[in-house]
Amino acid sequence: MAVYTEISDEALRAYLAEYGIGELVAFRGIAEGVENSNYALKTTAGDFILTLYEKRVDPAELPWFLGLMRHLAARGLSCPQPVAARDGEALRELCGRPAAICTFLPGVWPRRVRQEHCAPLGAALAELHASGAGFAEARPNSLGPEAWASLLDGCREGGDAVLPGLVAELDRHLDGILREWPQDLPRGHIHADLFPDNVFFLGDESGVPRVSGLIDFYFACTDFLAYDLAICLNAWCFEPDYAFNITKARAVIAAYQSIRPLSEAELAALPVLCRGSAMRFLLTRLYDWTHTPAGAMVTRKDPLEYLKRLRFHEAARDVRAYGL
Amino acid sequence: MAVYTEISDEALRAYLAEYGIGELVAFRGIAEGVENSNYALKTTAGDFILTLYEKRVDPAELPWFLGLMRHLAARGLSCPQPVAARDGEALRELCGRPAAICTFLPGVWPRRVRQEHCAPLGAALAELHASGAGFAEARPNSLGPEAWASLLDGCREGGDAVLPGLVAELDRHLDGILREWPQDLPRGHIHADLFPDNVFFLGDESGVPRVSGLIDFYFACTDFLAYDLAICLNAWCFEPDYAFNITKARAVIAAYQSIRPLSEAELAALPVLCRGSAMRFLLTRLYDWTHTPAGAMVTRKDPLEYLKRLRFHEAARDVRAYGL
Repeated sequence: MAVYTEISDEALRAYLAEYGIGELVAFRGIAEGVENSNYALKTTAGDFILTLYEKRVDPAELPWFLGLMRHLAARGLSCPQPVAARDGEALRELCGRPAAICTFLPGVWPRRVRQEHCAPLGAALAELHASGAGFAEARPNSLGPEAWASLLDGCREGGDAVLPGLVAELDRHLDGILREWPQDLPRGHIHADLFPDNVFFLGDESGVPRVSGLIDFYFACTDFLAYDLAICLNAWCFEPDYAFNITKARAVIAAYQSIRPLSEAELAALPVLCRGSAMRFLLTRLYDWTHTPAGAMVTRKDPLEYLKRLRFHEAARDVRAYGL
Repeated sequence: MAVYTEISDEALRAYLAEYGIGELVAFRGIAEGVENSNYALKTTAGDFILTLYEKRVDPAELPWFLGLMRHLAARGLSCPQPVAARDGEALRELCGRPAAICTFLPGVWPRRVRQEHCAPLGAALAELHASGAGFAEARPNSLGPEAWASLLDGCREGGDAVLPGLVAELDRHLDGILREWPQDLPRGHIHADLFPDNVFFLGDESGVPRVSGLIDFYFACTDFLAYDLAICLNAWCFEPDYAFNITKARAVIAAYQSIRPLSEAELAALPVLCRGSAMRFLLTRLYDWTHTPAGAMVTRKDPLEYLKRLRFHEAARDVRAYGL
């Protein structure tokens, strides 16, 4: 949950005056999202989301993210669309920060992932990958394998206070992951953060969940497509007790493959991609955990949730462990 | 900011099925409010707020709060209205907690209080007091002067770690406040927490703020009406550097008096009521500060903001210090 910047009503009114989206009706901070400040904005023209981009987002990269969202939507993917102000610009400034208004997406993210969410999620991921093709520019993954050694270095001092022996265990895991990391899998634009809170669902008439949209593209980058799938397996297929739910994993992968079949090389790489994805979230969480002053008004996510995933994947040395 | 309880989509769907307010369209946690969990709920019938009442609210008192909100709205005050489910009941249960759906109020709370907000606030407070008359039952103020000594006792251990000498200073302030506390001022139902985030404004055509509604009645109780005004003077009339803005105070009080004139006794009591109100918020914040484990995912409010107010009021021994 995050609302970092308080926007005065005068500043908001002046900002809205630059747009042709009606008069202000309501404005409330949204509790979800940890990187940026998001506000539910209602005007006489409808519902919107106002985002202020906070320190972790490089303003120079925002045009790429917004461009990708436009590209995906033009190909039929449901995701928030940047709203241009009267001067044609969508990316603006508010309270000294980059800011944009995007369209509102209906739907609800699943607080508890059920098996019925998994096939729609897998299909939505494959559609995202297919729709991303043709968006010309690449954005390197700044949190990819090249970044992990230095992230781990940044945790050496505080890491063992979180769990004794943690740093040595991570050194060992990271060595293995980097040694086995694939060199040439199909690449494309990936979401790279497709956790349940970034996937909205609506039920159809019979209550079966269908994906109504994907949000929060601010970690999107260009990398192995199957790595995005590995991120989803980690984020969607572990139970609260960290048991891996093979039925959910099968549903995600099968639905993905119904739209974009995985190559033999991608299937063979899935275990190490899962280990790498667990390492990525473990390291950024551990870094935040060890660098956030106790008492800071920020939600820190438990890094050890991802250690448990990492250990599972290390024990599972081939793709059969994932239900295939 | 507070969203304490995560509601599964199944639980939400089952809950909504008890109402006749259309189909679920969107559901997001609201970052504002610290006591309860609030969610922006959109259905095919419109916008609503779903509240889950968390541990600080006594479920037995909820019918009183909801009844007061209905009473006030029936007299023309704009405040959220509990929505009855198909069985006629508005107060229900969700995820093991008391829960209610209320109507959505348009408007925006002022992140930065300007002078133009103050007269509308004062008038809205007086209207609230006038509208509350006739709501039969009384609810004692559980955070009133009778509670302060034991709240302070609960802070004796940790208080001086917040500021050396704090506990002794508060003992001294509290002695004085309780000694001077008035015995017989006009009483009625008060909001008791009318901070800026509980007052929504919309601009009229010329941009002048007008109050669009009051929210969050879960500290409402029966007490001196002028005590509610003192709470507002503390919450609305200090600048970020803790300077008291006498122009704002005059605007609040004059607008209040245009609807409900204060008696001589109320005016004379205003300084001690301001001291008491500063003490009340100081003590609950100090209690939370000293009893919340560091690192807990809860926003703690700085108690010392209210020490500065308390010191101002102590120096201001009569009502002229408030611009009257």
